[in-house]
Amino acid sequence: MDAPRSYTVIGVGAIGGVYGARLLAAGHPVRWVARSDADHLREHGLVVDLPGGRSHHRDLHVVGPGDLLPQSDVVLVCTKTTAGVADLVAEVAGPGTVVVAMQNGLGVEAPLADAAPGATVLGGMCFICSHKDGPGRIRHLDYGGVTLGEHTADGRAAGVTDAVAAVAADLEAAGVAVTREPDLARGRWRKLVWNIPYNGLSVVLDAGTDALMADPATRGLVEALMSEVVGASHACGHGLDEAIIPKLLADTEAMTPYAPSMKLDHDAGRPLELAAIYDAPIAAARAAGYEMPRTAALAAQLHFLDRRRRHPDG
Amino acid sequence: MDAPRSYTVIGVGAIGGVYGARLLAAGHPVRWVARSDADHLREHGLVVDLPGGRSHHRDLHVVGPGDLLPQSDVVLVCTKTTAGVADLVAEVAGPGTVVVAMQNGLGVEAPLADAAPGATVLGGMCFICSHKDGPGRIRHLDYGGVTLGEHTADGRAAGVTDAVAAVAADLEAAGVAVTREPDLARGRWRKLVWNIPYNGLSVVLDAGTDALMADPATRGLVEALMSEVVGASHACGHGLDEAIIPKLLADTEAMTPYAPSMKLDHDAGRPLELAAIYDAPIAAARAAGYEMPRTAALAAQLHFLDRRRRHPDG
Repeated sequence: MDAPRSYTVIGVGAIGGVYGARLLAAGHPVRWVARSDADHLREHGLVVDLPGGRSHHRDLHVVGPGDLLPQSDVVLVCTKTTAGVADLVAEVAGPGTVVVAMQNGLGVEAPLADAAPGATVLGGMCFICSHKDGPGRIRHLDYGGVTLGEHTADGRAAGVTDAVAAVAADLEAAGVAVTREPDLARGRWRKLVWNIPYNGLSVVLDAGTDALMADPATRGLVEALMSEVVGASHACGHGLDEAIIPKLLADTEAMTPYAPSMKLDHDAGRPLELAAIYDAPIAAARAAGYEMPRTAALAAQLHFLDRRRRHPDG
Repeated sequence: MDAPRSYTVIGVGAIGGVYGARLLAAGHPVRWVARSDADHLREHGLVVDLPGGRSHHRDLHVVGPGDLLPQSDVVLVCTKTTAGVADLVAEVAGPGTVVVAMQNGLGVEAPLADAAPGATVLGGMCFICSHKDGPGRIRHLDYGGVTLGEHTADGRAAGVTDAVAAVAADLEAAGVAVTREPDLARGRWRKLVWNIPYNGLSVVLDAGTDALMADPATRGLVEALMSEVVGASHACGHGLDEAIIPKLLADTEAMTPYAPSMKLDHDAGRPLELAAIYDAPIAAARAAGYEMPRTAALAAQLHFLDRRRRHPDG
């Protein structure tokens, strides 16, 4: 058997912490690229709290600011956005490296592909309830599956490529449920059907998924927003089945009341990831001749709130 | 000269207080229909504070709960909504009475016309910055003009009728700037072009007109909402000129920063007047085959917030 693939995890938060820890426990060399938490991780390791217990990982290979970045077989980009880490990825990814954009939304692969032209760039979407409790401390509450895919340079379906198969196999061997998505863009649109209504409305209305579903007005608005996303997926050539809408509504009603990650970001005063979840889908749909008026209205409200947070006196 | 027309003012708040006081000062008999404030008004009278001074009106003819309602020539309905005062209006309006619905929005005349079949029902829209500071105490900050009109039973333009001319003359003689609107419904749509974006967004985003105009995202959303209202006015046969949009945007930017009345209601925990400002216009447009998706999205958010205020525990 070949040596296990080496991994570099950029961003040791709710996503990177969970999946990096799984891969480490499964025997992969893992390099952790951290900024403010680097010293804490070196000293205290990484703790992942699960409903059923806790995993504690010590003696981590931590790469902090100014440290030399080793090349790995696979780079998991687990920061909030990919645009801000392009320089890091350019340094860490050589020819043949597989770089995985583990963000939601559209257009997140492009900055990585531009930064590392010799690399293979995949997209990963995490279906997980987890958050960072503090430096080196992640709470993984529920779910945890990952959808992996690759698209061609111009966004068309690339099928289940060798790179997708390899990373999927590693994650599965580490105990992660993986869906191999032959049409990555369609998978991304599918995830947006949930994220666009619930992330934004939870922030604007200061409400969890349960409250949004309990009121007929917001439930109707969630459904109308979902319809716009499904419509946009068709306009962009990655058409989703309309049946996803009643399924997601029912799944969400059955879920534990849940504050989406954008609401956690907003409540904590962190920037909102609006570019990939709102701006890029709206722009892609518009370029294909399809308007998303409710989504655009919600996005405008979110940009207003995000800017006010950053410039409260402005 | 004939005896001055007698007036009954239902609702002694930011609207009824200002215009009733003007008519009283101009020599009209005015009867004031109040609920919780009746005793206060009898004892202390009505104070209207203006930037340039104060008017104090004593010895008012106050009609409280349980009192006999005298008939007047004109009834100004100055409550938040008209639906809740239909019984009162039925009692106070005889054949030949002129009843004026002084509310914003669409469909506010219908409950009054149903309640008082022998009466003539007008619509009045107030362009005024005023609010109630407390029982019998109104602060009139700026503006104060009224647009008056009448429509046919099925909503078509009735022209400047005798009843419109009579009430307009009384208000003008009392120092109020009056616009006689031959197409009442068009006048109502025109006012909605301002009210629909600013009222709702100020509540949802907890922001004044200045903040909404300063951010490019919300400024764009205001403009898009205005466009929907102008489009709906055309679909409903009361088409407004598109030029109203840049004019209102510029007027609002030039205005003193302003919290719309719906925001004052929301901040004070009072119900929001959503039926006339949002639900009726959306329904009228839809009946005419025109969708208002951004307006409907905003209305859904407002209904959610309004219901949560009433049932904070869900």
